[in-house]
Amino acid sequence: MAERTKYILDEADMPTRWYNVVPDLPEPPPPPLHPGTREPVGPDDLAPLFPQALIAQEVSTERYIDIPEEVLDVYRLWRPSPLFRARRLEKALGTPARIYYKYEGVSPVGSHKPNTAVPQAFYNAAEGVTRLTTETGAGQWGSALAFACATFGLECEVWQVRASFDQKPYRKLMMETFGATVHPSPSELTESGRAILAADPDSTGSLGIAISEAVEQAARAENTRYALGSVLNHVLLHQTIIGEEALKQFELAGDTPDVLVGCTGGGSNFGGLAFPFLREKLAGRMDPVIRAVEPAACPTLTRGKYAYDFGDTAGLTPLLKMHTLGHDFIPDPIHAGGLRYHGMSPLISHIYELGLIDAVAIGQEDCFAAGVRFARAEGIIPAPEPTHALAACIQEALRCKETGDEKVILTALCGHAHLDLPAYGAYLAGDISDHALSDEVLEKSLTGLP
Amino acid sequence: MAERTKYILDEADMPTRWYNVVPDLPEPPPPPLHPGTREPVGPDDLAPLFPQALIAQEVSTERYIDIPEEVLDVYRLWRPSPLFRARRLEKALGTPARIYYKYEGVSPVGSHKPNTAVPQAFYNAAEGVTRLTTETGAGQWGSALAFACATFGLECEVWQVRASFDQKPYRKLMMETFGATVHPSPSELTESGRAILAADPDSTGSLGIAISEAVEQAARAENTRYALGSVLNHVLLHQTIIGEEALKQFELAGDTPDVLVGCTGGGSNFGGLAFPFLREKLAGRMDPVIRAVEPAACPTLTRGKYAYDFGDTAGLTPLLKMHTLGHDFIPDPIHAGGLRYHGMSPLISHIYELGLIDAVAIGQEDCFAAGVRFARAEGIIPAPEPTHALAACIQEALRCKETGDEKVILTALCGHAHLDLPAYGAYLAGDISDHALSDEVLEKSLTGLP
Repeated sequence: MAERTKYILDEADMPTRWYNVVPDLPEPPPPPLHPGTREPVGPDDLAPLFPQALIAQEVSTERYIDIPEEVLDVYRLWRPSPLFRARRLEKALGTPARIYYKYEGVSPVGSHKPNTAVPQAFYNAAEGVTRLTTETGAGQWGSALAFACATFGLECEVWQVRASFDQKPYRKLMMETFGATVHPSPSELTESGRAILAADPDSTGSLGIAISEAVEQAARAENTRYALGSVLNHVLLHQTIIGEEALKQFELAGDTPDVLVGCTGGGSNFGGLAFPFLREKLAGRMDPVIRAVEPAACPTLTRGKYAYDFGDTAGLTPLLKMHTLGHDFIPDPIHAGGLRYHGMSPLISHIYELGLIDAVAIGQEDCFAAGVRFARAEGIIPAPEPTHALAACIQEALRCKETGDEKVILTALCGHAHLDLPAYGAYLAGDISDHALSDEVLEKSLTGLP
Repeated sequence: MAERTKYILDEADMPTRWYNVVPDLPEPPPPPLHPGTREPVGPDDLAPLFPQALIAQEVSTERYIDIPEEVLDVYRLWRPSPLFRARRLEKALGTPARIYYKYEGVSPVGSHKPNTAVPQAFYNAAEGVTRLTTETGAGQWGSALAFACATFGLECEVWQVRASFDQKPYRKLMMETFGATVHPSPSELTESGRAILAADPDSTGSLGIAISEAVEQAARAENTRYALGSVLNHVLLHQTIIGEEALKQFELAGDTPDVLVGCTGGGSNFGGLAFPFLREKLAGRMDPVIRAVEPAACPTLTRGKYAYDFGDTAGLTPLLKMHTLGHDFIPDPIHAGGLRYHGMSPLISHIYELGLIDAVAIGQEDCFAAGVRFARAEGIIPAPEPTHALAACIQEALRCKETGDEKVILTALCGHAHLDLPAYGAYLAGDISDHALSDEVLEKSLTGLP
C-alpha cells in the first residue's frame, strides 16, 4: 500500500465557521483611529465603505462566526482544498523532515483570495449593494473579486496598478472574462488619480494609490461599496477556513506541525493558515513555531515601524496601528506583486509584537530558486509570493538534514504561477535581483508617517 | 444537508489499470501500413521512435494493462481528478438536465495531457532512453511532457509551432521552468524544417511540420525517442483512467449518463473519457449517446475522408487509416490549438465508422459564448478546446429545457484557460470568427492523400 500524497476532506467535513483569533489573544489589538480626531473609529465611519455585516465582523469579539450557507455553496466549487505531503520534494532534498503544503491554487482564480471575495460579495449583495470597487496589483485579488461578483450578480470595478495593467494582460483578461471593468491606476476617473497624474503623468502607480481611487469611488457612487483583499480583520477571519481545514487534515495524517511557514504581504494568507494553529498553541494543544516570510524588498515586519499609518497613499483610510514602511513607500518592482504593500495587517503586527510569531525576510533570487526546485519535484509551479515561504521551508528542511531532526513543516502554498510565468522566465534568464530595501530609503519613507 | 458539488475518490480508489477498448470492438481497427510497401508495420519499424513497452501497448489486444507503481505515484500528485455536478450552470440555464463534468485542469500543467506524458516518460527512462523529443502547438502537450521528463530525469526537446511560439510565450516559459528546451518550428535544426523554410522563410509552421522535426531528431540522435500526445492507441489507452474514475464517481453520485460529450482534436481526451463508458454500453450495462465535438475549422470526423494518410507533413510516419483532411492541410488559426490537427485517432475513426459514436462540428463563436457562460456560473474558465464540448452540452441542456427531459449529461472538461486568456480577450472584443472550412479548400487538400 502506497503512502498517501494528499489528504482530502469530504465536502461534509468542510468547516462551517470562521475562527476569530482576537478573543484568544492575551490583549486586544489597538483600534483603528480617525485621522482627524485620533479617536477610535466607529461603525458609522466605516459605513460608506463596507456593509454592516462586514463592519460587525471587523470589530467582533466572538470566537466563531458561522459561514452563511450561500457562501459554503460557492466554496464547494473548490473547497475543501487539498493538503499535500511533499514526498517528492523531501526525497529531492534528502531531508528527514516531513513537509506538508496546504494548496489554495485549486480555486477558480488560482489563489486563496476567493475565500474572502465570496463572502464579501455575498454580504454586500444581501444589503442591496449593486457594485463593488477594489484595487489590485498583479491581479490575484481583482480576479477573485470579479469571480465573486459574477457569482452574486454584482458589478465589479477594479483599479489595477498601471505597471501590472500594462505588463500582465492575462489577469486583466481573467477579470474581464468574469465580467469586471478594469481601469489602470492612477486614472483620470478620481481626484486621487488625477492628483498623482498631475504630479507625474508617467506614474506607474502603487497599491496605495489604487486603494485611494477605489475607496474614493465607493464613497461617492450610489449603491457602491469597497472591498479589500487583505490587511483587515474580517478578511483574515474569512481566510481561517484554510487553517481549520488543515487542522482536520493533520488529524487524518496523524501528524502535528513543528514549524508553520507562510508568506506575508498584507497578511491574509499567513493569518488564514496560522490563526487556527495559534489557537491550538495558545491552548497548549500543540507548540509549533509560526514563521512569517516577507520579501527583502518590502520587509514590513522585520524592518518596518510599529506605528499608526494610513492604509492608502492619499490618506483616505482610518489610521491603522501596524508595521509599516510608510504610506508613501513604493517597493521596488519584485515579481511577488501580492507582497508589495507598505503595511501589514494590524492583527498580525500585534501578534508579532506579542512575540507569538517570528519573521524573516528573503530576497527573490533564493525564492525563485526554491520555486523551480519545488516545481520540478511536485509539479506545481508556485506563484512568486509563496516561493518566499517555500524558500524558508527548504532552509528548515536542509537544517534538518544536517541535524537529523524529523521536523514536521507545514506551509501555505497560496497560489500557482500560471499567470506569473514571465517572472520565472526572467529568473531562468538570470534577470532577477533581490532589491533589498536600503536603510536610506527606509529612513526617508518613515519620515512621512502621520 | 446541501447537495454535493464534487465527487472525489480517495487515492486508494484510483484505478490501477488502463482499459484497452480494442478487444471489445465488433471488429479490430485496420493496422498502420509502411508507406513504401503498404504492408502492416511491425514492432521493428517503430523501434527507432518508441520504447518496446509502448510498442507492445500500441498493438495490445489485452483488455486491461496494469499501471506501473512509479506512474501511480506521480498520478497521485493530482489524481483522482474531481467529477463536478454543474449545479450553478444548470440553474443559470434553467434546465431540468443534470450536467456533470470530469475536470482534468487540476493536473500540473492544467490539462489531461500528463496522464500519458508520465507513463511515456517512465517507460522510456526504464529502457535507458535519456532524451525525448516532441512537437507541440499551443503548448499543452509540450508542457505535460516537460513536467513528466523532469519527474523521471529525462531531457526534453520540444518543437513548438512557430505561430504559437511567438504568440503564446507563457507555455514556452512553463516548459522551460520544467527544464525543457523549446525550438520554434520550422527550425534550421532538421532536414524537414530546413526544407519548409527554404520554400517559405516566413512559415509559421503547423503540427504536421513540428511532428516531422521531432520524429527526425528522435530517429537520428542517440538514446533519444519520440513522444506523441494524442492519436495513437497507447496514448488513448493511458487516458482511459479518466473514464474509469468517472464510472466510479457516477456510482458515488447514484446516476448514469444519457449523453456523453467530449471535444476531439487527435482524440485522446475524448477517448479517455468515452472508452470505459463504451465498454459499459457494448456490454449492455448502460446506453449513453457518445458524441464527439470538433471545430468547424478542422472537422475531421464530420467532413474528413476515412483513408490511409500520414500523421505528419513530411511523410515520415507510417500510414494511418483515419479520418483526415489531408496531411498538407493547415487549419485556420482558431484559438483551440489542440484541435488543429489534420487527422483523427485511427481508433476513434474506426469506432465512428462502426456507428458507435456520433459527431458534430461547432464554430468557435458559439464555443467561446459557452465558455464565458460556464466560467461565470462555475468559476472555471475552460480552455478553448473543451468549450466545444460545453457548447454541445449547453445545446443539449437547452433542448431538455424545451422538452422537460431530465437527461444526465457528462462532459470532459480537459483543461483550464489560464494560458489561453488572450483568446477570451479576442472573443470579448468581438474579434473572433468561426473559420468554417470551405468545400474548395477541403477538396484541394484531399487531393494530396498518399
